Amino acid sequence: MLPNIFISTTNCGIKYQNRDDLLFVKFNYPATVAGVFTKSSMPASPVVWCKENIRRGKARALIVNAGNANAFTGKIGEETVLKTVQAVARQLNCEVEEVFISSTGVIGEILDANKIINAIPIMSENFSNNSYSWDKASRSIMTTDTKPKLVKKTCTILGKNIELIGFAKGSGMIAPDMATMLGYIFTNANIAQDTLQKILVDAIEKSFNSITVDSDQSTNDTVLLFADNGDKNNPIHPLISDSECLEIKDFRQKLNELCLELAKMIVVDGEGAKKLIEIIVEGAQTSIQAKNVAMSIANSPLVKTAIAGADPNWGRIVMAVGKSCPETSPEKILVKIGEHPLTQNGAKHPEYAEKIVHEYLKKSEVVIAVNLGIGSSSSIVWTCDLNEEYIKINKDYRS
Amino acid sequence: MLPNIFISTTNCGIKYQNRDDLLFVKFNYPATVAGVFTKSSMPASPVVWCKENIRRGKARALIVNAGNANAFTGKIGEETVLKTVQAVARQLNCEVEEVFISSTGVIGEILDANKIINAIPIMSENFSNNSYSWDKASRSIMTTDTKPKLVKKTCTILGKNIELIGFAKGSGMIAPDMATMLGYIFTNANIAQDTLQKILVDAIEKSFNSITVDSDQSTNDTVLLFADNGDKNNPIHPLISDSECLEIKDFRQKLNELCLELAKMIVVDGEGAKKLIEIIVEGAQTSIQAKNVAMSIANSPLVKTAIAGADPNWGRIVMAVGKSCPETSPEKILVKIGEHPLTQNGAKHPEYAEKIVHEYLKKSEVVIAVNLGIGSSSSIVWTCDLNEEYIKINKDYRS
Repeated sequence: MLPNIFISTTNCGIKYQNRDDLLFVKFNYPATVAGVFTKSSMPASPVVWCKENIRRGKARALIVNAGNANAFTGKIGEETVLKTVQAVARQLNCEVEEVFISSTGVIGEILDANKIINAIPIMSENFSNNSYSWDKASRSIMTTDTKPKLVKKTCTILGKNIELIGFAKGSGMIAPDMATMLGYIFTNANIAQDTLQKILVDAIEKSFNSITVDSDQSTNDTVLLFADNGDKNNPIHPLISDSECLEIKDFRQKLNELCLELAKMIVVDGEGAKKLIEIIVEGAQTSIQAKNVAMSIANSPLVKTAIAGADPNWGRIVMAVGKSCPETSPEKILVKIGEHPLTQNGAKHPEYAEKIVHEYLKKSEVVIAVNLGIGSSSSIVWTCDLNEEYIKINKDYRS
Repeated sequence: MLPNIFISTTNCGIKYQNRDDLLFVKFNYPATVAGVFTKSSMPASPVVWCKENIRRGKARALIVNAGNANAFTGKIGEETVLKTVQAVARQLNCEVEEVFISSTGVIGEILDANKIINAIPIMSENFSNNSYSWDKASRSIMTTDTKPKLVKKTCTILGKNIELIGFAKGSGMIAPDMATMLGYIFTNANIAQDTLQKILVDAIEKSFNSITVDSDQSTNDTVLLFADNGDKNNPIHPLISDSECLEIKDFRQKLNELCLELAKMIVVDGEGAKKLIEIIVEGAQTSIQAKNVAMSIANSPLVKTAIAGADPNWGRIVMAVGKSCPETSPEKILVKIGEHPLTQNGAKHPEYAEKIVHEYLKKSEVVIAVNLGIGSSSSIVWTCDLNEEYIKINKDYRS
């Protein structure tokens, strides 16, 4: 259970009643840390802080609040971050640059640093590291999420047992009001920072960066991977510093699986969502082109509403291909829903049976496959259906 | 009332009962024609036909059906177009290349050419050109539109009275199931084809190409401008062949207004829409950048649902700027809703009063203005709010 990592959660009264809204993670030994952040030009203050300090690559603490994103809060927002990390650093007797911080919630409202700072001493008396702590951690960062999202994996590196524990929040890949997709992964592997960064980027590209709920990109998106294997003089295994080496093949595989499982949990918990939609695009000239077409389908409100209604309205899929891929043409593409081919020679497939596809679309997991017929590259993305509940959740005044 | 242009409509039984679904427009003299079409790589067969023949620039007829898009229908779809234009050409004793054709409705279903062909002789006996004809024309092309969209303008060119009559359909800028935005404009001005094409492209850029309902691009989008001034040996005024000349300044102005009024009618009639949202982006480095940001705001489901609920959730506007403009930063941007400034120095404006903005957002027309603070270019786009009705309309099986 990652013996050198300790967790404490509490309610500090930022927004929610009767639930924890503050997470404090302590690393007994400096952990190696890698991170990936939102590409938004309006990043929240905690994101700016983490981006700045990820280069040093060492973490002694992580602090995360839910209920306020501390985004678009100007100088006061920066001060809130600074005051918070200073309080944590004082408590743990570490450098401020070793404290990583995230916020999630409404944009543009001032986050009162004192609520967090006042909670820190009490939280420090309640650190624990059992299975229950991780569950509490995953719950404390929720906003409009209806379920916590926690995944554990094990593997071996050089004969040693390695753990991977990750949790995430997000309901809507990005719901900037309740701003954000946040993900934190912890391990006891002994891996060099640049190697850790590289394998995290790879894992995210095919998981968190391949999902969409509503095409909106948050100001707060953050994924951090902490590798804490205890006393550096007595590491669990010799340092790994080659991302391609065979010794961490199993580890990378498990990290990829963990990220993908968390990412799918986010999609399934998309606001109002009832179905997981997997979109496979093959036969592309490049994987970027494939992903672009897949995202065009995944972000089409007309495709997503059709799936919500189990309506095999495949013309909408053709439309989404047409608007995103000038390089292909009707007679080149093949569209399938599940195992059912829908198109042939630029028209409806002669064996297409609408009723069968309608029945298939009633399932909770649906696969759409498109072959662009112009190359051999591919991509897979995941999204959810679009229901009235999404509108209700996001429309109501002061949601 | 454009004395050389005649209209006939009927119900030919493609999909709808108890309403006209076929429009036949006849030009007594060859009209000069300009056109702009969807950029989709999956264009419908009628679009392919029109694109091919627009270069010749002469029209004797226009035929439009509602209820079936004849899109993604392969070779049969091409044959349907050919059979239809041949029947029209035979009827009018003109070249097939002088017949323009559009279809709107469901994608991927075979359109029976015979339904149209059989109606042509009867329609030819019922041509008229009064005010009522134009109203009927605008109604015959509707699909999920709740209202017909017809605009008339007058102006003068070289002292002669010139008329402009335009009508359009679209509910959802693009609702590919009921595929498409279609627009047709008619005038008796005497303008060279390349000049006509240029001024149409300019008018469309700031009207039909500046609106969005759901970000989806149709397989059938078409706007055609027909200039028919009668007997070429006795033109209404000398030929205009310079798009920048002063003589057609008034004409261009009125054409721009007509296109914009039709475009706004489409947005207001967006599926389930209750509000017209105008998005002004200024202070950009280029007008393309400005339009890109404006469209990012206009297409954000979270912005559109917030407006639906009159929720001044301006963080979502900041989010949409952040995801579309890496060149700016929080302290540079200014966001206003109506006349109310929301931001200053990368944070909430000190005088921001949520209740006042909430009241403002209850109006049926709403303006969002963003200054990017990095240049002097600008763009305006229009969209509608996003309501549960959009989902209902697009979700129901066999909508």
